[in-house]
Amino acid sequence: MSDRVVLAYSGGLDTSVGIGWIAEETGAEVVAVAVDVGQGGEDMDTIRKRALECGAVEAVVADARDEFAEQYCLPALQANALYMDRYPLVSALSRPVIVKHLVEAAKYHGATTVSHGCTGKGNDQVRFEVGIGALAPDLKVIAPVRDFAWTREKAIAWAEDRNLPIDVSKKSPYSIDQNVWGRAVETGFLEDIWNAPIEDVYSYTANPAEPRDADELVITFDKGVPVAIDGETVTVLQAIQELNRRAGAQGVGRLDMVEDRLVGIKSREVYEAPGAIALITAHQELENVTVERDVARFKRTVEQRWGELVYDGLWFSPLKDSLDAFIAKTQEHVTGDIRLTLHGGRAVVTGRRSEHSLYDFNLATYDEGDTFDQSQAKGFVQLWGLPSKIAAKRDQAHH
Amino acid sequence: MSDRVVLAYSGGLDTSVGIGWIAEETGAEVVAVAVDVGQGGEDMDTIRKRALECGAVEAVVADARDEFAEQYCLPALQANALYMDRYPLVSALSRPVIVKHLVEAAKYHGATTVSHGCTGKGNDQVRFEVGIGALAPDLKVIAPVRDFAWTREKAIAWAEDRNLPIDVSKKSPYSIDQNVWGRAVETGFLEDIWNAPIEDVYSYTANPAEPRDADELVITFDKGVPVAIDGETVTVLQAIQELNRRAGAQGVGRLDMVEDRLVGIKSREVYEAPGAIALITAHQELENVTVERDVARFKRTVEQRWGELVYDGLWFSPLKDSLDAFIAKTQEHVTGDIRLTLHGGRAVVTGRRSEHSLYDFNLATYDEGDTFDQSQAKGFVQLWGLPSKIAAKRDQAHH
Amino acid sequence: MSDRVVLAYSGGLDTSVGIGWIAEETGAEVVAVAVDVGQGGEDMDTIRKRALECGAVEAVVADARDEFAEQYCLPALQANALYMDRYPLVSALSRPVIVKHLVEAAKYHGATTVSHGCTGKGNDQVRFEVGIGALAPDLKVIAPVRDFAWTREKAIAWAEDRNLPIDVSKKSPYSIDQNVWGRAVETGFLEDIWNAPIEDVYSYTANPAEPRDADELVITFDKGVPVAIDGETVTVLQAIQELNRRAGAQGVGRLDMVEDRLVGIKSREVYEAPGAIALITAHQELENVTVERDVARFKRTVEQRWGELVYDGLWFSPLKDSLDAFIAKTQEHVTGDIRLTLHGGRAVVTGRRSEHSLYDFNLATYDEGDTFDQSQAKGFVQLWGLPSKIAAKRDQAHH
Amino acid sequence: MSDRVVLAYSGGLDTSVGIGWIAEETGAEVVAVAVDVGQGGEDMDTIRKRALECGAVEAVVADARDEFAEQYCLPALQANALYMDRYPLVSALSRPVIVKHLVEAAKYHGATTVSHGCTGKGNDQVRFEVGIGALAPDLKVIAPVRDFAWTREKAIAWAEDRNLPIDVSKKSPYSIDQNVWGRAVETGFLEDIWNAPIEDVYSYTANPAEPRDADELVITFDKGVPVAIDGETVTVLQAIQELNRRAGAQGVGRLDMVEDRLVGIKSREVYEAPGAIALITAHQELENVTVERDVARFKRTVEQRWGELVYDGLWFSPLKDSLDAFIAKTQEHVTGDIRLTLHGGRAVVTGRRSEHSLYDFNLATYDEGDTFDQSQAKGFVQLWGLPSKIAAKRDQAHH
Repeated sequence: MSDRVVLAYSGGLDTSVGIGWIAEETGAEVVAVAVDVGQGGEDMDTIRKRALECGAVEAVVADARDEFAEQYCLPALQANALYMDRYPLVSALSRPVIVKHLVEAAKYHGATTVSHGCTGKGNDQVRFEVGIGALAPDLKVIAPVRDFAWTREKAIAWAEDRNLPIDVSKKSPYSIDQNVWGRAVETGFLEDIWNAPIEDVYSYTANPAEPRDADELVITFDKGVPVAIDGETVTVLQAIQELNRRAGAQGVGRLDMVEDRLVGIKSREVYEAPGAIALITAHQELENVTVERDVARFKRTVEQRWGELVYDGLWFSPLKDSLDAFIAKTQEHVTGDIRLTLHGGRAVVTGRRSEHSLYDFNLATYDEGDTFDQSQAKGFVQLWGLPSKIAAKRDQAHH
Repeated sequence: MSDRVVLAYSGGLDTSVGIGWIAEETGAEVVAVAVDVGQGGEDMDTIRKRALECGAVEAVVADARDEFAEQYCLPALQANALYMDRYPLVSALSRPVIVKHLVEAAKYHGATTVSHGCTGKGNDQVRFEVGIGALAPDLKVIAPVRDFAWTREKAIAWAEDRNLPIDVSKKSPYSIDQNVWGRAVETGFLEDIWNAPIEDVYSYTANPAEPRDADELVITFDKGVPVAIDGETVTVLQAIQELNRRAGAQGVGRLDMVEDRLVGIKSREVYEAPGAIALITAHQELENVTVERDVARFKRTVEQRWGELVYDGLWFSPLKDSLDAFIAKTQEHVTGDIRLTLHGGRAVVTGRRSEHSLYDFNLATYDEGDTFDQSQAKGFVQLWGLPSKIAAKRDQAHH
Repeated sequence: MSDRVVLAYSGGLDTSVGIGWIAEETGAEVVAVAVDVGQGGEDMDTIRKRALECGAVEAVVADARDEFAEQYCLPALQANALYMDRYPLVSALSRPVIVKHLVEAAKYHGATTVSHGCTGKGNDQVRFEVGIGALAPDLKVIAPVRDFAWTREKAIAWAEDRNLPIDVSKKSPYSIDQNVWGRAVETGFLEDIWNAPIEDVYSYTANPAEPRDADELVITFDKGVPVAIDGETVTVLQAIQELNRRAGAQGVGRLDMVEDRLVGIKSREVYEAPGAIALITAHQELENVTVERDVARFKRTVEQRWGELVYDGLWFSPLKDSLDAFIAKTQEHVTGDIRLTLHGGRAVVTGRRSEHSLYDFNLATYDEGDTFDQSQAKGFVQLWGLPSKIAAKRDQAHH
Repeated sequence: MSDRVVLAYSGGLDTSVGIGWIAEETGAEVVAVAVDVGQGGEDMDTIRKRALECGAVEAVVADARDEFAEQYCLPALQANALYMDRYPLVSALSRPVIVKHLVEAAKYHGATTVSHGCTGKGNDQVRFEVGIGALAPDLKVIAPVRDFAWTREKAIAWAEDRNLPIDVSKKSPYSIDQNVWGRAVETGFLEDIWNAPIEDVYSYTANPAEPRDADELVITFDKGVPVAIDGETVTVLQAIQELNRRAGAQGVGRLDMVEDRLVGIKSREVYEAPGAIALITAHQELENVTVERDVARFKRTVEQRWGELVYDGLWFSPLKDSLDAFIAKTQEHVTGDIRLTLHGGRAVVTGRRSEHSLYDFNLATYDEGDTFDQSQAKGFVQLWGLPSKIAAKRDQAHH
């Protein structure tokens, strides 16, 4: 049998051309693998056929939407994962699930090598290659765009030479990556960081500035998992989709930021993640109600590290596993309802209720029914401040 | 000379009654001290006169607005201080500056004791007493509401008995604390955490849901300090005031959350902080542009600890001083302009420019002019993922 | 049935007197509970009889040595728990297991109250009371020494008045707490922190300065658990006991430090923990060999927080549970042998071997067989240093 | 003028051969730079002459011992810097000071390029190149051993061909790096991590197992700087040298560990650092006495990050600068005396005294003079444990 290369296939120009180019360059047979993570766009079967027309010996399409939602988006939700306090890790989450399918295909189809179309200045090359290294340390990797300086112009020339079934004329001004957790957009005019995004950049979200009526809904969580919206049972995938629709209609989840890439440079990124932002907002507040203070404080440190690891391509790393064990433990009581108002680009919590609440009305109230013993406070305050007081006495003696 | 007690005086029922009560209970003379931290409301001179009418031997009013803005709000801005990722520490910031004036007054007027009107279940008792302990370890503290179970009913009876010049009839349903950095509201019906706030709760902000035109402005920072708005030079106080006005008019900065108090309980809090939220939003993004990645990552840990310390009443603590030294160093290049759109309750950054930018167009661009050497990436990715890869090989051998 | 109080009983003067005093003061029946955590000293049956002679209606002795070793010392070992980088939490670990037995006894014997003999300036009052509050939130607590200013002199007078069977004449100059994990000593002359400890202070360890032959042994761990010494299978308790014996004979594990107490003061403490120090030393090095770098780095943060929590009396806290989940995950591959030389007060690792090792001879060697691809390093170094380089260029432009 | 290359020159075979090889390979003139960081061995002038004999156009020797001690070792001491809780960063500290002299020489002698002799699998290549990139972003770097697979065999052949004045016959079995802060040794037989080091490996330390009398001394610190030993004023360099001598004579400071390298592999390392370990031991305990608890707890996080940064080659990084600002603030009161016993491989603190002490005898003592108000403790304990208690009640209701 010939050597085989599994190619992460999107159906677009670069990877369509890649099929033939890799075959010629390496003498190997190419197996194209396209993974549905809810990116929408073309029908997966159309994509599969194109791969074959472009010369793939096998073309595999995998519907990984539920898997992606449950095993990748849900842990991110439970980690309230926002890289740099803002970005819900849209692309960073989809890469590992794609890697998993590439590696499975490589094993099934007897390939020795995996190929991806990432450039050498982005994060995704790291996520692909480190993920492949962790799941299948013996697989080799080819990255034509990075390692052979493959460019769009070369790709078009190649496609026209071989008469490939790709419409090379339509060039979007935008570089886009999307999945059910969100959408990332880069484009030339946004590389000037003083320029504001224009409405044309967005697709998952309506303009928040347009007047419309507010939407209100109740999300039910069970141990950190969204299980119902307005009382209707949902899967994790359905929860994200429904909130993409309803929060997106209210313009929720637009992000515009300068971001620190793993490869050491800063870049300008525009994101849309209506469902992710709405869910994280609700989940955070339910944690405020149901998670004990010291856990909540330490969990922020864990959340930050979790987000950095995943952003930095280390999904399949031992530290990620250990942080997940911590987070799983914290979710045992994150059960209850959050009422959310979606409007004008904002997802605002207006109510929370939980049988697992640590909010105790009788301890908190200033009205009748107060059970808090205020006499305990005096001693508490004295000892709480004692180290500062001792230090202050010392300092006054020495300044 | 008689013993003297310095009382933190607000002009309201509790502390007005407190003047006479403390005098009777302790036999001491009472010096009333009111500090203007931008809380608005009554004229400070009216407050001063009322204190004297209620029996104070001295009544001091201090305009601490600039001091509060520059020495308390500004460090919070540079720390991007948001307790539990949300609350900009409104009351937590004003207590230490009030403490400073109380202690100064105690020294000036020869008092041995300071008194405050806080209850025993809130954070403010801690902030007052730990602060006093740190600035003047030898001063004693009296907290009548907490230690003598003083209630509103007792206070009214006392005031009517003594015919004090206080209108005891007007009772706000709200318990409010406000200053130039924001406004905190608690009230009975919000103690049911399923209830949403009503419009009547708010004062610093207009309803974000009402249609209006967006506002756009440019904030200029110099080493982490806001120095101009739309090109007009401002003091820190003016920057906060101007943004309270303009961001408040757009409904920016409303917060509704369940919060972990230092005394060990959870409470429901509603806040408004239009200027604080607008400034922090702008400052964070300017840091994204001008602060190096590793600094930015570690600064989040410092910011969280800073916020916890200040929330927990440890403003005048050695750790706060050391964290401030770290933060001050990080601000050296936080210089430049941020363009902000204020609308519909949101403050959104739409542009950033800085001569101190670490964003390098030529490294970031995918267009012509790209200077990033992609050939370096391959080796980077390999070694970056090496520990995960070695661990993966080991794990596969043992599972 | 009369009300009952469960008393943490040591057999010593204070708690022996406490039996009668509590009975008189409260009118309740007293149930004495003594827990064997390997403290040695008097026979537990002798202690039980004394409790009854002093007036207890019931006297319970519990052999908790294995439970203590497996459920309290072992987690501390896996956390490499050293408070302030030094103290292996001797007393802090035994309090929660004692609390567990007190609470069980209270339930079994129908008591409404638990009593302990701790003072108000130490950590142990916190460990007892917070532990009781977490396991049985409805139990009340009496702390006669703290709350009723009970002193040694009062206790002797009481004992002589009632003719209690206690020898009040023998007064140790030392205040000692000991269990199988170690021994803590406080005494008057050590309260001058310039004074050195004298040999008389120590009991678990021989003088390390005396010449003797070194001892060498091999400890085998399985998933973070010490399971054999020199090839002989051991329980956790046996591992600690054997190492107390052999490391103690070589003077290993003496500690002398100024320590930050939870109640806000610094205190001078002398400890001996030969087995604990030897085991932690071996366990740390086995982790160096078998735990991935990022896990190891983050685990230090977890270890520090774990040690602080346990020191601060929060063994039965939600954060402790979540940190334990993290730690448990990290131990999955901590399997292998450590060879240790014990001599002159030091436990020194001289060899490690593990089938789960991440040390790869072929990657590490500079000799033949080297499989490390050095060409990858150049690109790695460039991108690793890129953020610093960009910042340096910026700084040079602005200084 | 010809192009010039500055070469980090040690006087040994590799870099001596490097002079001619670089000249031939690049056509540039080579300037040899040797930096004295206290490594001992050959006379610096001998080294300088050899460089010229090997073909250098200029040979510079710099006595950087005081600079190294004051600007590199002292910050490490104040950070109590121990990578992986053990290794005092011996080589990691000397690389940046060498880099500084290389860059200065490059500017002075008009060189465009710097060269070092590091391999591609160690940390030092990173420390050199990242440091150079931060100090002089425009300088190029040549690393012949790594980038041209230069080997010892090739070097010997080259030296013999050209008749260079180097004795190629004497080959140490050890790969050694040493400076005044310590000494690092690697060698073939230690690459088997089950093998124990032999006495022949060590040079800075006597065998700790040999009987000898103990040594006792008092180190005086002023704001974190060691300023006197036994009352004799010392510079930082003298303090390290004197402690190397006296602690080394007692076998203090031997380390044997498996270590996580930045390039992603684990390696076996043996170190000796008698002065560093003695100084850090003393400094840590003086901090225990003079630094407030919360500062001490957070400083451990800072110390760990500082050690990782420096180990990872990021001495000249913005984060290092900001961490230094934190640490500098914490040292303001680290003033006082520590008495240390050196014996049998151990440096043990036996006394501490300081006018800046936070240890308060009257608060700590259990004897007469006790000023601690124990009545404050009851309330403290209750509120301290309240969150755990509320969580426990909730948990019991739901399990």
